[in-house]
Amino acid sequence: MFPFSRGIPPREAIPAQELAAQAAAVLAEQPDDVFQYAPIGNHTGDLALREELAKLHTADPERIFVTNGSLQALDLLAAHLLRDTGPDVYVEAPTYDRAVQIFERHGARVTGIPLRHDGLDLDVLRERLAERTPAFLYVIPDFQNPSGVTTSEDKRRALVGLAEEHGFVIVEDIPYRELRFEGTAPTPLAELSPGGRVLTVGSLSKILSPGLRVGYVIAEPHTVTALAALAEGTYLSPAPLLQAVAARSLAAGLAASNIERAVRFLKPRHDAAVAAVRRHLGEDALIAVPEGGYYVSVHLPVPTDEKTFLAAAKKDGVLLTRGSAFYPGSAAPPAGTVFLRLPFQALTPEEFAAGVERLAAVTARLA
Amino acid sequence: MFPFSRGIPPREAIPAQELAAQAAAVLAEQPDDVFQYAPIGNHTGDLALREELAKLHTADPERIFVTNGSLQALDLLAAHLLRDTGPDVYVEAPTYDRAVQIFERHGARVTGIPLRHDGLDLDVLRERLAERTPAFLYVIPDFQNPSGVTTSEDKRRALVGLAEEHGFVIVEDIPYRELRFEGTAPTPLAELSPGGRVLTVGSLSKILSPGLRVGYVIAEPHTVTALAALAEGTYLSPAPLLQAVAARSLAAGLAASNIERAVRFLKPRHDAAVAAVRRHLGEDALIAVPEGGYYVSVHLPVPTDEKTFLAAAKKDGVLLTRGSAFYPGSAAPPAGTVFLRLPFQALTPEEFAAGVERLAAVTARLA
Repeated sequence: MFPFSRGIPPREAIPAQELAAQAAAVLAEQPDDVFQYAPIGNHTGDLALREELAKLHTADPERIFVTNGSLQALDLLAAHLLRDTGPDVYVEAPTYDRAVQIFERHGARVTGIPLRHDGLDLDVLRERLAERTPAFLYVIPDFQNPSGVTTSEDKRRALVGLAEEHGFVIVEDIPYRELRFEGTAPTPLAELSPGGRVLTVGSLSKILSPGLRVGYVIAEPHTVTALAALAEGTYLSPAPLLQAVAARSLAAGLAASNIERAVRFLKPRHDAAVAAVRRHLGEDALIAVPEGGYYVSVHLPVPTDEKTFLAAAKKDGVLLTRGSAFYPGSAAPPAGTVFLRLPFQALTPEEFAAGVERLAAVTARLA
Repeated sequence: MFPFSRGIPPREAIPAQELAAQAAAVLAEQPDDVFQYAPIGNHTGDLALREELAKLHTADPERIFVTNGSLQALDLLAAHLLRDTGPDVYVEAPTYDRAVQIFERHGARVTGIPLRHDGLDLDVLRERLAERTPAFLYVIPDFQNPSGVTTSEDKRRALVGLAEEHGFVIVEDIPYRELRFEGTAPTPLAELSPGGRVLTVGSLSKILSPGLRVGYVIAEPHTVTALAALAEGTYLSPAPLLQAVAARSLAAGLAASNIERAVRFLKPRHDAAVAAVRRHLGEDALIAVPEGGYYVSVHLPVPTDEKTFLAAAKKDGVLLTRGSAFYPGSAAPPAGTVFLRLPFQALTPEEFAAGVERLAAVTARLA
């Protein structure tokens, strides 16, 4: 079986032994704290953790709000941002399907703007903005899930320019940003618009550990306060133990060393995956050469519909996520193609190449 | 200062050292599992934990759904139960204020039914039911927060009878149930109505550790599946580490031994608190003699309004939660009284007695 289905970190990219040692130290030093409720006034997150996260982003700890994973951050942000505004939310098409579901559950009317190899199609975005201003625009600017696309520096500047001009908020979700294998990192959107118009959603899942369930929002202090009130009314606070382990592990430099290790481990997989896609599926199918992250993706011309294609692939042992699920509303891949997200992080170069070779064979057989 | 304000467990009722030992064992045995995402299909909760929770309640593990604390359970239940029904929710008056806020955030129209010393006023409930059938009735039947009231066996039978007759769901929230200091435990509502009409919300916060953030719902498997889908779309899953520590601690008998220890520690505080209320505030003010839990409460006749009274008490060093906040909508304490929740779990008998004595003095001074 070739599982091209899930974006979970490989075991080699989680420093489990080192995290366990940090956790053991926390348990030895502060058992009374970590098994009790978080102290009052700590509902924006454990201060030591907020200080460490602030260091990662050269931000003020007052601007950090810690959540139970970054999905929960999106959930609270949607509740907050849609509370007093119209229901429109613009997203990349394709985009992270769970984010769209969360926005819709909060009553959003989600519109997909086509994503090109270097970011959103700005012409289409301008057309939509001429019609309606959204409450917010949601983007994953680095090695996007699912497409692997990185938004270029020029497009980042254009996006924050449009946000200022039309008066909407940008939510940038950057879980993969530190996992860069080549090229130069463009400027974070938040840095291009320091006035609070860009909210950043981060996560420790891909750089340290998903099991810690540490997500966070970087925002103006008044937004942090509002989000914390919502969180307190929903689940009180993230667990003190997990926050203490995360803080201590960051302070010990575990994220930095693990990022190095993960990049070293993943870069050969990335390089091999891109080469295999080119060889077996063709340069034209490739949406972008991802410069980092977990995903390479294609718009693959197929002689049938998506359902038939996925069933045929599955019969041949290739498990794929339904690509159309990444397109919100009426957005869709180009006619005659299916969108396929091909996570490379969990497969060896040989497994990945064999998988896409088989995909090519499925396509040929269906023709 | 006399803090009559929070319902957090005293340090003596959390087995921190024993929990730390269980956590250390989990970290040594399965570091790879606990720092990774929870496995697919585990989003109703870690199976070992569900099995342990099921044992506590003589239930099937398929009927257990684990959440990040029981507030999160109420949040997901409200989303689920209000999705396809009218907006009415009936609650006890007074009731747990955070629950009401959660229901209202999900669009509920919350109506308070007066709570007597032995449970809901059934006459008033029947009147309301003649007008409208709610989506659900929310009750805290054991040593209620905030009142300390336990719903009698007769009233429990009447409640499930009314639920069957009118076709509404009962949500019973039982975080304190195991902390009984005297008398006999009435039958859980869910046992009186095994057909799935009663959903149970439980928590390890008061019997083992709040820091574990383990809440749970006991419901029919189809409800568990629906709640798990909502949870997966909001925060994926609770942290594997916390669930593993909880499972292992329950398997080691830590909850049972801690309940014994907590009851032994709290009973003298309870007895002294009830005696002090009788002595200083009078038998008539006492709403009920709580047979367990954390709270004794009064309807205290005062010669002024609540705000003035609380400010005067604070000036004298007595910190109180605003009692009217426990009354939803237009519900209110009896005319001429304020409702005061007096948590006794965190104060020594001497501190508690000194606190209520001072309250009596404040009342006299204001007259």
